[in-house]
Amino acid sequence: MTDWGALAAERLGRIAACSEPGPGVTRLPFTPEHRAALAEIRGWMEAAGLTPTLDAAGTLIGRREGDGPGTFYMGSHQDSVRHGGAYDGIMGVALACLAVQNLAETGRTLPFAVEVLAFADEEGVRFPTALIGPRALAGRFDPDVLTLEDRAGTTLWTAMECFDLDPDGIGALARDPEQAVGYLEAHIEQGPVLEQSGEALGVVTAICGIERHAVAFYGETGHAGTLPMKSRADALVGAADLISLAHHLGREEADLRVTVGQLDIAPNVVNAVPNEARLTLEIRSPDDAQREAAGQLLTRKAHEIAARWGLSLDMRKTYRQTAQPCDPDMRSGLTDAVMAAGGAGVELASGATHDASAMADLCPIAMLFLRCRGGVSHVPDEFASPADMGLAVEAMAHFLANHRPT
Amino acid sequence: MTDWGALAAERLGRIAACSEPGPGVTRLPFTPEHRAALAEIRGWMEAAGLTPTLDAAGTLIGRREGDGPGTFYMGSHQDSVRHGGAYDGIMGVALACLAVQNLAETGRTLPFAVEVLAFADEEGVRFPTALIGPRALAGRFDPDVLTLEDRAGTTLWTAMECFDLDPDGIGALARDPEQAVGYLEAHIEQGPVLEQSGEALGVVTAICGIERHAVAFYGETGHAGTLPMKSRADALVGAADLISLAHHLGREEADLRVTVGQLDIAPNVVNAVPNEARLTLEIRSPDDAQREAAGQLLTRKAHEIAARWGLSLDMRKTYRQTAQPCDPDMRSGLTDAVMAAGGAGVELASGATHDASAMADLCPIAMLFLRCRGGVSHVPDEFASPADMGLAVEAMAHFLANHRPT
Repeated sequence: MTDWGALAAERLGRIAACSEPGPGVTRLPFTPEHRAALAEIRGWMEAAGLTPTLDAAGTLIGRREGDGPGTFYMGSHQDSVRHGGAYDGIMGVALACLAVQNLAETGRTLPFAVEVLAFADEEGVRFPTALIGPRALAGRFDPDVLTLEDRAGTTLWTAMECFDLDPDGIGALARDPEQAVGYLEAHIEQGPVLEQSGEALGVVTAICGIERHAVAFYGETGHAGTLPMKSRADALVGAADLISLAHHLGREEADLRVTVGQLDIAPNVVNAVPNEARLTLEIRSPDDAQREAAGQLLTRKAHEIAARWGLSLDMRKTYRQTAQPCDPDMRSGLTDAVMAAGGAGVELASGATHDASAMADLCPIAMLFLRCRGGVSHVPDEFASPADMGLAVEAMAHFLANHRPT
Repeated sequence: MTDWGALAAERLGRIAACSEPGPGVTRLPFTPEHRAALAEIRGWMEAAGLTPTLDAAGTLIGRREGDGPGTFYMGSHQDSVRHGGAYDGIMGVALACLAVQNLAETGRTLPFAVEVLAFADEEGVRFPTALIGPRALAGRFDPDVLTLEDRAGTTLWTAMECFDLDPDGIGALARDPEQAVGYLEAHIEQGPVLEQSGEALGVVTAICGIERHAVAFYGETGHAGTLPMKSRADALVGAADLISLAHHLGREEADLRVTVGQLDIAPNVVNAVPNEARLTLEIRSPDDAQREAAGQLLTRKAHEIAARWGLSLDMRKTYRQTAQPCDPDMRSGLTDAVMAAGGAGVELASGATHDASAMADLCPIAMLFLRCRGGVSHVPDEFASPADMGLAVEAMAHFLANHRPT
């Protein structure tokens, strides 16, 4: 019998070499590294009895017909961040192929066609956009993004044309929602929950919604020795209050994540009172109402803090993405499959965005999380064990074999 | 009768042209701008009956003999910060010359010689050292600083030689403390206290001591969506606590100034938990015991904060300078002089370091502060009014005429 975990590890080791030089994996969309990776993935698809084709958005699609109408989708993305790891994204493609191969080897057929999708770009590292592939399938592709440029000044349009794609054809990729049975994505957790609970696999309840605010406190600078404390309008003191408050709010409410990740102050010298503190405030929750309430509370508090310290405040919401709940039936089937593979069926929210976030506009989604060492991702020593990947292949095959959409 | 304030303003306007191009005044030591400024100051000295000579440290000294032994010193520095104003430092030189000229015009003689000192470098902008001139006079010059380099790689030694100075002669500049009657420095306040109290002039009680700490909190980074709040070791959250605490401590205690002026975090991206927050903590007080207690308290608190958030802490004191109290007799005489000029005799501490800080190692010191518009300094629109400068000249002349050292 095939050791699915060992096979996954071997394939991921080989495709990790499709990378720019440097630490870890750097594989950006529409590059020679992407092209090399597609050759590898074609091999995985063919080994599973899937027929590979590259669509106009750069998604490599491996299809196997089924015993009935409709198509079930699985997959993830081929690209990485700069100096990222060998698992984020690409592991989901590898495990989907192996799940189909597992079904084929065990002679199980399905009442629907299966397509494994290897999306080009999820990380949004090369171009200031992402999710072109799943958005195209969901009929939500915005052609304006084709004019966006990478660091070198190459437009997305040109990058795709040089990759032998036809950007004009992306609009026609939209699938019929009536024929879309569902989408399942396997991904490393990118957090410590599964590791801490001693579980290899977890079932995602929802993909968190996100909002981001750009916050700037403005005060007045002055000499740190000569300006009396009570005459100060210290922008950093205001920022510190908001940072503390945001963190405490996040700790108080389960599932809420509140992060000040970026902070820059001016003039930023040892003996001058800071007159400017610019920061980002990011709020995530699987519950949109919870996220919105947190955003409103922190906006109100930021204004109170500014008034208290004699600062002016410029706070604007720069980004908003609603939560995507996973389909209850698929969640339930996936929990059964995880338990059949010996897991406890731990449920958890996904704090990060995934291809599934965009596929949710086409069809019901589900996500399977795999434990990753130290909870870390986007770093060269990102790691999921062969044993855990083997269990994931078993669970995915079990899920597919038993999925009967209502 | 001479309008001393108008004369001061006219001279300061002219010497402000001795500057590098750009906004405001940029006059660094041992430069062509410095040389041009010295030519101006020579004229001021000669108009006051002072005989100018340039010492080996680049201090232009204007001397007038007195009716008895001993020398009374007055002055300040000729240099500015980059893009600074027309008053900081150089105004003290101008007013000292005018006070002597005032005494001469009114036929008043003194029981001691007077020297007006135009020091080369107090701001420490060009070289990472400062106060060479007063330290030399006080016998505290450290010849090791001569090897320090400016941005262009020129050593202080070379810069002085090219300025026709003899760095080897600096060691011999030390004056006899027995013959040093006192040192009086006039300077803009660089803060808002006089302006807020409606007073032109203030008498300095002491020059604050300073200590600086380099503080670094180290935690662990992670994805802002996937890392649960309670699993985080967010370095910025620790820094925020210390920033708040430091500011509140400063507000609670009169005369204490506590400033976090510099803060840099890593990785400093919107969706990553900060794993590093490096900041500077500066504490100033005219009372060394108060400053030291504050430094010890904040060090203890920083360790508590680090422990609370699961961070490691690297905190080290990088700089310490004790407070310099002004001489009680001179303070009292200066208060009389300010009141004779119609002032209330407001007393205040100097939060900033001055040439007087180094002259205190030679003789008793006193400082006269002038109100400056908006409390601002080190900026192009730094301003003290001609009227206020006129009152300062009157007060300084009155002080000199009445000073009888015990």
